[in-house]
Amino acid sequence: MNRTIPPITTGPLSASRKIHVPGTLHPIRVPLREISLTGEAPLTVYDSSGPYTDCAGTIDISQGLRDVRGSWLQDRGDVESYSGREVTAADNGFAEGKRLTPVFPVPRDPLRAREGRAVTQLAYARAGIITPEMEYVAIRENEGRKAAYSRDGEAFGAGLPALVTPEFVRSEIAAGRAIIPANINHRELEPMIIGRNFLVKINANIGNSAVTSSMEEEVEKMVWAIRWGADTVMDLSTGRNIHNIRDWILRNAPVPIGTVPLYQALEKVGGIAENLTWEIYRDTLIEQAEQGVDYFTIHAGLRLHMIPMTARRVTGIVSRGGSIMAKWCLHHHRESFLYEHFAEICDIARAYDVSFSLGDGLRPGSIADANDEAQFAELRTLGELTKIAWAKDCQVMIEGPGHVPMHKIKANMDEQLKHCHEAPFYTLGPLTTDIAPGYDHITSAIGAAMIGWFGTAMLCYVTPKEHLGLPDRNDVKTGVITYKLAAHAADLAKGHPGAQARDDALSRARFDFRWEDQFNLGLDPETARAMHDETLPKEAHKLAHFCSMCGPKFCSMKISHDIRAVSQKAEGMEQMAAKFREGGELYVPAGHIGEPAE
Amino acid sequence: MNRTIPPITTGPLSASRKIHVPGTLHPIRVPLREISLTGEAPLTVYDSSGPYTDCAGTIDISQGLRDVRGSWLQDRGDVESYSGREVTAADNGFAEGKRLTPVFPVPRDPLRAREGRAVTQLAYARAGIITPEMEYVAIRENEGRKAAYSRDGEAFGAGLPALVTPEFVRSEIAAGRAIIPANINHRELEPMIIGRNFLVKINANIGNSAVTSSMEEEVEKMVWAIRWGADTVMDLSTGRNIHNIRDWILRNAPVPIGTVPLYQALEKVGGIAENLTWEIYRDTLIEQAEQGVDYFTIHAGLRLHMIPMTARRVTGIVSRGGSIMAKWCLHHHRESFLYEHFAEICDIARAYDVSFSLGDGLRPGSIADANDEAQFAELRTLGELTKIAWAKDCQVMIEGPGHVPMHKIKANMDEQLKHCHEAPFYTLGPLTTDIAPGYDHITSAIGAAMIGWFGTAMLCYVTPKEHLGLPDRNDVKTGVITYKLAAHAADLAKGHPGAQARDDALSRARFDFRWEDQFNLGLDPETARAMHDETLPKEAHKLAHFCSMCGPKFCSMKISHDIRAVSQKAEGMEQMAAKFREGGELYVPAGHIGEPAE
Repeated sequence: MNRTIPPITTGPLSASRKIHVPGTLHPIRVPLREISLTGEAPLTVYDSSGPYTDCAGTIDISQGLRDVRGSWLQDRGDVESYSGREVTAADNGFAEGKRLTPVFPVPRDPLRAREGRAVTQLAYARAGIITPEMEYVAIRENEGRKAAYSRDGEAFGAGLPALVTPEFVRSEIAAGRAIIPANINHRELEPMIIGRNFLVKINANIGNSAVTSSMEEEVEKMVWAIRWGADTVMDLSTGRNIHNIRDWILRNAPVPIGTVPLYQALEKVGGIAENLTWEIYRDTLIEQAEQGVDYFTIHAGLRLHMIPMTARRVTGIVSRGGSIMAKWCLHHHRESFLYEHFAEICDIARAYDVSFSLGDGLRPGSIADANDEAQFAELRTLGELTKIAWAKDCQVMIEGPGHVPMHKIKANMDEQLKHCHEAPFYTLGPLTTDIAPGYDHITSAIGAAMIGWFGTAMLCYVTPKEHLGLPDRNDVKTGVITYKLAAHAADLAKGHPGAQARDDALSRARFDFRWEDQFNLGLDPETARAMHDETLPKEAHKLAHFCSMCGPKFCSMKISHDIRAVSQKAEGMEQMAAKFREGGELYVPAGHIGEPAE
Repeated sequence: MNRTIPPITTGPLSASRKIHVPGTLHPIRVPLREISLTGEAPLTVYDSSGPYTDCAGTIDISQGLRDVRGSWLQDRGDVESYSGREVTAADNGFAEGKRLTPVFPVPRDPLRAREGRAVTQLAYARAGIITPEMEYVAIRENEGRKAAYSRDGEAFGAGLPALVTPEFVRSEIAAGRAIIPANINHRELEPMIIGRNFLVKINANIGNSAVTSSMEEEVEKMVWAIRWGADTVMDLSTGRNIHNIRDWILRNAPVPIGTVPLYQALEKVGGIAENLTWEIYRDTLIEQAEQGVDYFTIHAGLRLHMIPMTARRVTGIVSRGGSIMAKWCLHHHRESFLYEHFAEICDIARAYDVSFSLGDGLRPGSIADANDEAQFAELRTLGELTKIAWAKDCQVMIEGPGHVPMHKIKANMDEQLKHCHEAPFYTLGPLTTDIAPGYDHITSAIGAAMIGWFGTAMLCYVTPKEHLGLPDRNDVKTGVITYKLAAHAADLAKGHPGAQARDDALSRARFDFRWEDQFNLGLDPETARAMHDETLPKEAHKLAHFCSMCGPKFCSMKISHDIRAVSQKAEGMEQMAAKFREGGELYVPAGHIGEPAE
């Protein structure tokens, strides 16, 4: 290593510490985040941030994270180590010398399923086996709760249990309603689950592009994204060094990493879509499966006969993978090789437990194109592919749009449930209007919250830079926090049995003028604190019974406290209410007010 | 004038010019904004920004804006000029010397209705009169359209006509379903309409507080807010100089200005809620009506017997006006003087055509308190007051929450329509979760877009500083743009007959790589351009057929164009589709792919 590795963001979030809940079936330790409060008991919340926020232990990205799953995999006895595919210069876009990202310094042979064995969570679930991964996510989903909290949502057919048990996880995976993306070669993974009957998850995209970005930047972007709550990270790198950068990311990632293998395959043929072949693509799948990629976006649902359906669209085909495949199909006048070879793709995924994210290559890129013939034709094909994947014991989720006005969002969820047999839905937004470039994290948060409520299991974030440029560090954080709040709004509306606890704790802190608790319970304590301090910077104001919005005289919460004090002193509120309802002399019947209506 | 007046933000928005559409019934000139495009005909959009974005004419805030409505008012012959109430030192919180905001330098006697006359738009509408204000808003709402554009929304019972006619405006106002807030003393006003069957509007709050802000800052904040699209502005000032600052704002405001008169009344009694009296409040209403305030928030629906209903709330009473009145009621053990004197309040409003925004003093301040007994009890009282106001020919809208999880939003709209007889609804957000301080413009934009879709006529913005501090210039802009996009998303979903034109124009520009058109059609061209330039700053890239997100090789839109070119050269897309559907040798039936399902 000749290069200096820049510091990675580490350390706990504000007022937080990492706690671990042990398993009962398996020797596992599930991390949660405990937020300490000044005025009440600590609140425990979900924690996707991995060891980076743990005070115990040090981080060295050239060593990678601790091996979490190695012993679980060995215990199952159905995997074998092998020497693996040889990394070629093409894998890194022929980058050389100083331009070549260094190889990750700790070599490791890949694992694969022994001959004839299926090593997917779906296969185990169907066999009635509760894996350590399943128990892990069960504990994780409960966030330290022992019982359901207050809930009153509308779940649109979802069935959220009061507490998630390992057996419930198993049954949901067996039914295809949930997935645990967990490649056997991603041993650093802290498993998580994606499904309609669990907490709504969010994905953050990172990745270098032709406009460049280094390995260090990408690792830090991943760490930064999960620090603020990203549940999975997709590495959408293009350009040179893809292979080596991906290794660095995976070895340091406690969350599932997804990719679009087509991007790397295209690099291998010099960016000429027509030159793609099944053989190059297949080799890329194996390359990435050996590295430990947890889920692949595969645009196998875009078929040749669907392409003309996009002819009258305002924005044509906006999915990168979709447009590449469409170009290939048209050039060769052939059916997509992804579609034709889908069963073979499943065989590869099955040997490593790579989950599928079946890509929506024909998703609408504008309000005008939402819910059109092309989009729904592809969706039905994704349903067909889902059954093929399930027959191969492969875990599947389905990608969704895109740009959809509010009144057309529900139909997307309904069609997906119907045609894709309740496989988890994973949507990009959707953006509810096209007219706000620079604010598409917000145009899409509206759609994301709604479709999450309707049943989407994971929301792919959109940053403020969408349509305009590559997100930087601030954009990534803004995108993640925006999607965390959208996912949480969805959980609340679905009636998730734990969601409202955090809202209530924060609101109690707000009403009690516990400013620090209010900041610390928020999704972004740093920003909340900084905004507060802009106008009332003094430490004493952190205890003040007002803020700069209204000042002390006009603070409704302060007055509310006064009201409670006054009324409790005089007589019980309830007695007062009774008295007023009876109509004493203070009670003025409505008829005496003003003039008769109309 | 001893003080230097800082420059006010003026000049057209990017690539835009102001055009004026003449009336046919009245000698009016209605401003619209024309966005010039490089690749297609210009797009005309709604324009709330007033003369500040007009190249013709100069701005001098010490002179105020041009008198737009003076001749209209005189022509009606039902108003009289009088000397007006004397401004007292108490009106400005006893500010003196250098601390006193200067009096607005151009004095003008107020107008009021002649004895026995009702000068409200509602009275005229009921009498079958189409006022200049009504024709003005009819032209404005059509945004230069001659016919309906493509539409396919779900309007939930709203009836949006293809084109708004002056008669339609009249009939909606007569029915109480819409209001034109237009105090006869606000002659600088460019009239606008608030109603379920019109474009969804947004309000921005400004105002100084105990933590100070000058007259110049407040005028600039108002100009800044309308520049980005605020349809009305509420001046929520507290502290000293309220009267004089309000004069400066009104004389320079082309949009309706709303206030909460209770705030100033409270200042007059030194901030002691118990010391409020009907006489002081009444005097404040007249003071503000003479200045030209277009709508008053009146918290008359909060009644004594409702206060105990808030006893078990997590966040008590969070409306400032509500908490002040609750404190008064409890202290005196008396019914609210606003409720008792509501008919007299109507008499004042009727003499100046001040519209009512009936305040929701008991709106929920947390997810836990949403849709509770207290909130809906007050809402029913607001419906009762609506009928009283209508009997007095007063225009009314109803304020709504607040903090509401998604699954409880629709009930708010349904209850409001039912109990308030279709009077326009005007909501604050609602925020769909409590856990994101610093991002409440987004938590609330989700709720705002949804409730706007369901039928809310105006959305009160929330800035990122909500719950934390006073918004600065950047926060105001962020809040306004966020609410513009939420209101537009609502218009799209309702099936507004003009809304999608802008989305489609922007999406066409995006697909054609017309970057400048894409920026200029957005709600915030400056931010979009700046974000784009961060990674691809060169001017040549403004014409580039890719952006930094994907680079040239991976640009789906570029590939989409290639696909169209290829397919159009070879044969018609439709013919191709037919061929593939018939199933030639290139067509691979689904059954041949992979293995049988399951």
